[in-house]
Amino acid sequence: MQTVVKPLRVLLFDVFGTLVDWRASLIELAEATTGPTGPAADWAAIVDDWRREYQPAMDRVRHGAAWRDLDSLQRETLSDVLARRHVRLSAEESDVLVQGWRRLRPWPDTAAGLDRLRHSHVTATLSNGHVALLVDLLKFGNLRVDAVLSAQLAGSYKPEPTVYRTALRLLECEPEEAGMVAAHPSDLRAAAALGLRPILVRRPLEWGPATPLVDPPALDGLLVADGLDQLATTLGC
Amino acid sequence: MQTVVKPLRVLLFDVFGTLVDWRASLIELAEATTGPTGPAADWAAIVDDWRREYQPAMDRVRHGAAWRDLDSLQRETLSDVLARRHVRLSAEESDVLVQGWRRLRPWPDTAAGLDRLRHSHVTATLSNGHVALLVDLLKFGNLRVDAVLSAQLAGSYKPEPTVYRTALRLLECEPEEAGMVAAHPSDLRAAAALGLRPILVRRPLEWGPATPLVDPPALDGLLVADGLDQLATTLGC
Repeated sequence: MQTVVKPLRVLLFDVFGTLVDWRASLIELAEATTGPTGPAADWAAIVDDWRREYQPAMDRVRHGAAWRDLDSLQRETLSDVLARRHVRLSAEESDVLVQGWRRLRPWPDTAAGLDRLRHSHVTATLSNGHVALLVDLLKFGNLRVDAVLSAQLAGSYKPEPTVYRTALRLLECEPEEAGMVAAHPSDLRAAAALGLRPILVRRPLEWGPATPLVDPPALDGLLVADGLDQLATTLGC
Repeated sequence: MQTVVKPLRVLLFDVFGTLVDWRASLIELAEATTGPTGPAADWAAIVDDWRREYQPAMDRVRHGAAWRDLDSLQRETLSDVLARRHVRLSAEESDVLVQGWRRLRPWPDTAAGLDRLRHSHVTATLSNGHVALLVDLLKFGNLRVDAVLSAQLAGSYKPEPTVYRTALRLLECEPEEAGMVAAHPSDLRAAAALGLRPILVRRPLEWGPATPLVDPPALDGLLVADGLDQLATTLGC
């Protein structure tokens, strides 16, 4: 039996990994920044380590530390990762990498897919990136959404429920009218627990080629799409 | 001596009156909603009265009452204005008018002007309308800004300083990097007191034809433009 898809009014989008390719963008930026005379580092491994430090750093905020924005967390975790791998960068080079999160390339289907989805939905980011970072990132990729929402507006980080609830409140939206679009099961599980529809967008290259596909989480009403274009077709846009 | 215009990175836009023509839009909506068999009311006068009630209603919030969104304030003030003018509307008709603030027509230069200004500035609304209202209004007029910011995010209303400061904080912006674009001296005075550059956009038809021009407030560094297109030219966009 086919699940009947109740029409959604609002779509919330995770950003890093879901709309943009952080990995390839940051590896390229690191190589360009340090240059041929720079440290002969394995930038793919460093960038992956850096991204893995992201959750534990946010956990400290989720568990009671004062809220800090992503630039501040990323600066600290980058320094730890570089130290562990015995790579030295100047303060300016590190800063270029931290600021690089504002210049991540969208996946090829992102811009056109967001435009299609905007015609029949209210679209908004819902990212752990702070508002200023997201504004720069969307401008860099020429991505258009109806609202730039962030965990910052809840003073917390996903997957804390207050982040999703704050977005729903600001958009005057009941949970069942909203879909959470993300490449990551943890984000979808948290949203689904509050009554939002989970929408998995597969990004098989998020962690580079030859990484195993994410298993779709076992969630009621889950939609799965290979990109935003396919999602727009599924939703009848 | 010509004032040298220091380049601005961020432009914040007032919305009602500055980007959109609330008056003509609401008069037309009221006439269409109540129809030829509806009450023979002077809708221009009612809409003007309604708009004048807006500041005192927000004052009650500024002076300590719990924050309420604009829909809620407007519903209350509309009911007062209609009672004073002995006009009866059904609850549904009143609701159409309150919701009409989400379907106000942009001034003819607004959409193209915002697009020009976006190329070299970060653009954001900074309105007393709440986020959900602004999202609907921008979508209705197909207006594009980089961020939808609202007094709601500060839990207050303009011209309280916390509203401007919250916008600057969310955009990681120093006051001197930002311009406040508004048709209303009170908004510009409040912004200028915090160090933002005041930019008066003249909207001579805001209160209908045959109303006197707004006198430019005596503020250091004031820019004055007859619409967003002229402003874009002044700013070298």
